[in-house]
This record gives sequence, structure tokens and C-alpha cells, in this order.
Amino acid sequence: MLTEHTTRIRVRYQETDSMGILHHAHYLTYFEIGRTEMLRASGGNYRRMEEEGFYIVVVKAECRYKRPAYYDDLLNLHTCVARITSAKIEHEYHLMRDGELLAVGKVALACVDREGSVRRVPQWMQAEEPPG
Amino acid sequence: MLTEHTTRIRVRYQETDSMGILHHAHYLTYFEIGRTEMLRASGGNYRRMEEEGFYIVVVKAECRYKRPAYYDDLLNLHTCVARITSAKIEHEYHLMRDGELLAVGKVALACVDREGSVRRVPQWMQAEEPPG
Amino acid sequence: MLTEHTTRIRVRYQETDSMGILHHAHYLTYFEIGRTEMLRASGGNYRRMEEEGFYIVVVKAECRYKRPAYYDDLLNLHTCVARITSAKIEHEYHLMRDGELLAVGKVALACVDREGSVRRVPQWMQAEEPPG
Amino acid sequence: MLTEHTTRIRVRYQETDSMGILHHAHYLTYFEIGRTEMLRASGGNYRRMEEEGFYIVVVKAECRYKRPAYYDDLLNLHTCVARITSAKIEHEYHLMRDGELLAVGKVALACVDREGSVRRVPQWMQAEEPPG
Repeated sequence: MLTEHTTRIRVRYQETDSMGILHHAHYLTYFEIGRTEMLRASGGNYRRMEEEGFYIVVVKAECRYKRPAYYDDLLNLHTCVARITSAKIEHEYHLMRDGELLAVGKVALACVDREGSVRRVPQWMQAEEPPG
Repeated sequence: MLTEHTTRIRVRYQETDSMGILHHAHYLTYFEIGRTEMLRASGGNYRRMEEEGFYIVVVKAECRYKRPAYYDDLLNLHTCVARITSAKIEHEYHLMRDGELLAVGKVALACVDREGSVRRVPQWMQAEEPPG
Repeated sequence: MLTEHTTRIRVRYQETDSMGILHHAHYLTYFEIGRTEMLRASGGNYRRMEEEGFYIVVVKAECRYKRPAYYDDLLNLHTCVARITSAKIEHEYHLMRDGELLAVGKVALACVDREGSVRRVPQWMQAEEPPG
Repeated sequence: MLTEHTTRIRVRYQETDSMGILHHAHYLTYFEIGRTEMLRASGGNYRRMEEEGFYIVVVKAECRYKRPAYYDDLLNLHTCVARITSAKIEHEYHLMRDGELLAVGKVALACVDREGSVRRVPQWMQAEEPPG
């Protein structure tokens, strides 16, 4: 697995609010895109994981908002692995616009099966190597 | 089944956009709430229908936007059955604020099973009587 | 100002995701509803505050997800003031379903003017009394 | 102005619903992205238009849903101008996945100023040439 990755995201009109800025709830959606694209760039695929009965659920999320993002801003989202154990995956996120830091996030994930029972984080996710 | 019903919906901050108004995509979500609540008021329950393998999918949706809605507006959504056949359910929606018409919508639905195959609209939905 | 308040929120179909649960980003939107309704129950009104040039921005948000919420669940959201200073307002949120705790959140807010410059939290928000 | 344009959009997890498909309301958001990107490809910029006091509002939207889209699908959205007059802009949208048609949309827009008063559609939008 890659341990860091950068994705570009453009702020949609629908994601802004009447204060004229990106609504704060959408940052969590952006972070989800960040980890999905890091997984894809590592050769993995979350959709395939789900088809194989392997689900990833969010157990904790946090975000510190530093500066607002605006409609049509083209942002860089840096995703990096903060910690992976057999029980939990933690990523950190830095959302940037032209080198300026807009927000810092942290999301902890756990793995569950189709019935919601907790599973161990797969070995290949814990290794700094692409999945076979 | 009831053939008309009114639901109150308050515009959320997150649903506004940077023009300061309720974003046009959310009207479709409001209409979905309208038909869900009409079904509930009729003694039905869409969640239970899904649990029994019965799904309702949107095949066509349209909305004419007359006047903007704003954050925190308390709206009345009037839902009524326009037409129900064995193949399709059509509802009409009138979104009002203090007697003023904001939008008119029309959504056509079909019934499918868990695998997505088309099913007949159940008899009790076609009848103007509550489900047994 | 009230220091605690409970609001009921029903999970919308549009808010679920393909895992069949309330998507984690929407919890932040629910929390926003919780503090809005607590303000309203206190005799205040956030929309009017904005019209008077007074805006509230989120500076930090976090949520711990304990158990999933499902479509059509009728939830109780308990909002309480954790801390109010002249610079910051902090609320805590407990999202419950039939007495079962689903999630715990914490959101810190700051006040800004129309241009985004930081303002002091108004006295009446710091007091445990309704606004005049 | 270009009269047709294609944009790629990947379905986000947050946009799916518990039926496991892209929720029908998000198609309107996709269409908005389609026309925004067509404007950008034409040398225009909607954000700059708003800064100059020129707003575009949706007056009518409709969508026919043919086949569901799923999480992580990479879709092609074809946007084309159906009709532009001094009063109204109409676009048509075809949402495709690997050559398969998923949905057909049509959205009518009008131009307003900061106060919401109707304005004429600018000449350069009516011409089949890039804005100066």
C-alpha cells in the first residue's frame, strides 16, 4: 500500500452554503474520496472489496477548519496513513489551495463483514507494498 | 391509500448554496420525503416494503422552480397521486411557503424486486384504501 | 440561552449509502440542526443573526460513531453546551435511537462578520438566559 | 460558446443510497457540473460571472432514469445546448457508462442579477463563439 497520495477535487456549487463557502460536512466526503483514490493508486479497489464481503466503516472522524474553500476552487487533498494496526486504519488529510492549508482531518476506520462483525485489517493493507 | 398529504419541511443550512437559496437538486429529496410520509400516513411503511424485497425506483422526475426557498423557511409540501397503474405510480408535488407556490414537481415510480426486475404495483397501492 | 435541548430527526433515504446506513458525513449536518433548534428554543434565530451581519463558522468538528443508523430511523439528538467563552462556542451531541447511543459529537464554533473577521461571542449567548 | 461537451464524473460513495445505486437527486448536481465544465471549456467561468453580478438560476429540470449507476462507476456526461434565447438557456444531458445510456436530462436556466431580477442572456452565450 502507498502511505501517501494526493487527489485534486473541485468544489461543486451544490456543496457550498449560503455563507458562500464549502459546507463543513462535505470535508468528510472529500476525505473519503482521498482514501479511495489512494487505495486505487495502490492497486486496490474498494468496490471489489465490498463485493468480496469486506466493508470499511468510519469509527471516528475529526476536522479542523482553518480557512474557507469557495465554489470552483481546485483543491489538493493530501492523504496519508497515520497508523494501521490489525484493528484500525487511521488516515490524516491536508486540504490545500495553492499551497495554503485549508483544513486538517483525521479519520479512523475499522473493517467489518456483511453482517457488521468486526474483522482484522487485511495484511496487505498493513504492509507498505501493493496488494498481490 | 391516501391520495393526498401535506408534510412540513424546514430548509437546512446545508441545503442552501452560495446564491443563498435552497439548491435545486434538494427539491427531489423533499419530494421523496413527501411520498414517504404520505405512505406512512396511509398505514404503509417503505422500509418494511424493502425488507420484504419490494423496491420503488424513480423512472422520471421533473420540477418547475417558481420562487426561491431560503434557509430556515418552514415549507409545506403537498403530495398527491396523479396516476397509479399496475406499472407506474405518479405523484405531483406543490411546495408552498405561506400560501405562495415555490415549485411544482412530478415524479414517476416503478416497482422492482431485489434483483431489479420490474414488478406490478401492489393492489393496495392502487386502491384508495389503507393497506390491510 | 438554554444549555441543552433535544431534537428529533428522521433518517432520509437520500442520506443512506450503499452500505445501507446513514452516511457518516451527514452526522455533522444533524449536529448543525441540533444547535439551530436549541437556539430557536432559546428565543434566538440564526437566520436573523446572519441578516444582522453575524455569522457562525465551524472551526473544529469531531464525531465518534458507535452504532449505525438506518433509513427511516427516528432519532433523538441531544445537544448541550460544553463551553462558551468570548472567543468560542463548544457543543456536544449525543445521537440516540430508543435509548441506544449511536454517536457522540463535538463541534467548536467561532463568530465572524460579513467579511469573515473574528467577532466576540455575544453576551447573551454566554449567559444562561434567553436573549432579550 | 461550445454547443456540446463531455465531462467524466466518478460516482462517490456518499452519493449512493441504501438501494446500492446513485441516488436520483444527484443527477441534477451532475448536470450542473456538466454545464459548468462546458462553460469553462468555452473560455467562460461561472464563478467570475457571479462576481460580476450575473447569476444563473434553474427554472425547470427533468430527468428520465433508464439504468442505475453504481458506486465508483466512471461516467461520461454529454452536455449539449438544446436552445438559447435572450430569455432562457436549455441544455440536454446524456449520462453514459461504457456506451450504455443511463439517464437523459433537460434543464432550463434563466439569468438574474444580484437582487434576483431577470436579465437577458448575454450575447456571447447565444453565439456559437468563445467569449471575448
